[in-house]
Amino acid sequence: MKLEELFIRRRSVRNYQGRAVSVEVIREIIKESTLAPNAGNEQPWKFIIVNDKETLKRISDESKKNLLARIAANPNDYAKKYEGMLQNEAYNVFYNAPCLVMILGFSHLKNLYIDCTLAASYFMMAATSRGLGTCWVNLGTVIRDPEMINELGIPDDCTIVAPIILGYPEKIPPIPKRKEPEILRIIGQ
Amino acid sequence: MKLEELFIRRRSVRNYQGRAVSVEVIREIIKESTLAPNAGNEQPWKFIIVNDKETLKRISDESKKNLLARIAANPNDYAKKYEGMLQNEAYNVFYNAPCLVMILGFSHLKNLYIDCTLAASYFMMAATSRGLGTCWVNLGTVIRDPEMINELGIPDDCTIVAPIILGYPEKIPPIPKRKEPEILRIIGQ
Repeated sequence: MKLEELFIRRRSVRNYQGRAVSVEVIREIIKESTLAPNAGNEQPWKFIIVNDKETLKRISDESKKNLLARIAANPNDYAKKYEGMLQNEAYNVFYNAPCLVMILGFSHLKNLYIDCTLAASYFMMAATSRGLGTCWVNLGTVIRDPEMINELGIPDDCTIVAPIILGYPEKIPPIPKRKEPEILRIIGQ
Repeated sequence: MKLEELFIRRRSVRNYQGRAVSVEVIREIIKESTLAPNAGNEQPWKFIIVNDKETLKRISDESKKNLLARIAANPNDYAKKYEGMLQNEAYNVFYNAPCLVMILGFSHLKNLYIDCTLAASYFMMAATSRGLGTCWVNLGTVIRDPEMINELGIPDDCTIVAPIILGYPEKIPPIPKRKEPEILRIIGQ
């Protein structure tokens, strides 16, 4: 597949088949994602694999509860626009995907967000090249319950940067319209 | 080229041929980079192209000066470890690459760093697929001189997230050693 085709085929998928993803395939994708560039070859990324729909449903419920509490405490919260969706009991923030991979790392690291995001980009492309769909789900990791944090093995000194769902797409959506790139200035020719 | 080969061939290149990169090719790469995923399809990325070695040399000198001043004011500064390099007059933070593309956007946006980093990842891959080399150069955009900011067209309300040099590689370095991915937990199978 030409790279540009891969870029076009990589869509945020919110509609998955029931089919599970094997842990072996997930491991391959994670391994390729660690080929991403990163500051000083520090490779700060860590991974947690949740390959179980029942656990994902519980994480979704926990996140929704905490987001709604946050919105109630602060009506200017960023998540306010999702309030209606979050109040809908049937809504699963992970769109019933069979798998979630969290990319995380030590919170104190200066380049954590950039490095984990680069790995996430590689992850999404490596998944696409295997016919899998992904979606970065920011709403899905507002986890406060200490028991759940413990169950998932999230260390206290770490921050989840990229929560990415993974599965076989039921339907690959069309590409949302892109603007012409905004090039502010060109110096030289 | 298989995607994994592309991942392996994409290296941080610090050694470039004298050959210039045409603005047309740079525009193609930028266009492909805007296919990156981003929060809410907001596409917050903007671009500045500096395709001129003399200007790059001046930006490098400006950045070095400001970094050295920052280190002098605070010996715990992150850039302290580069002090020796920065004091070397012959050292160009852009490694004499012929071109720099800055990816930037409005500073107030919540997802600016993540979205611009995703575009940067696409940019580096689109460049690699055309035989070009890249390197993300964090040291290169500590620009304080108002005249230079004006010359480069950097808006006051914007932050540069990804300064990426671009050029034809003189030599593609081998891949730095990668650790085995650190998978903290696997739930499900």
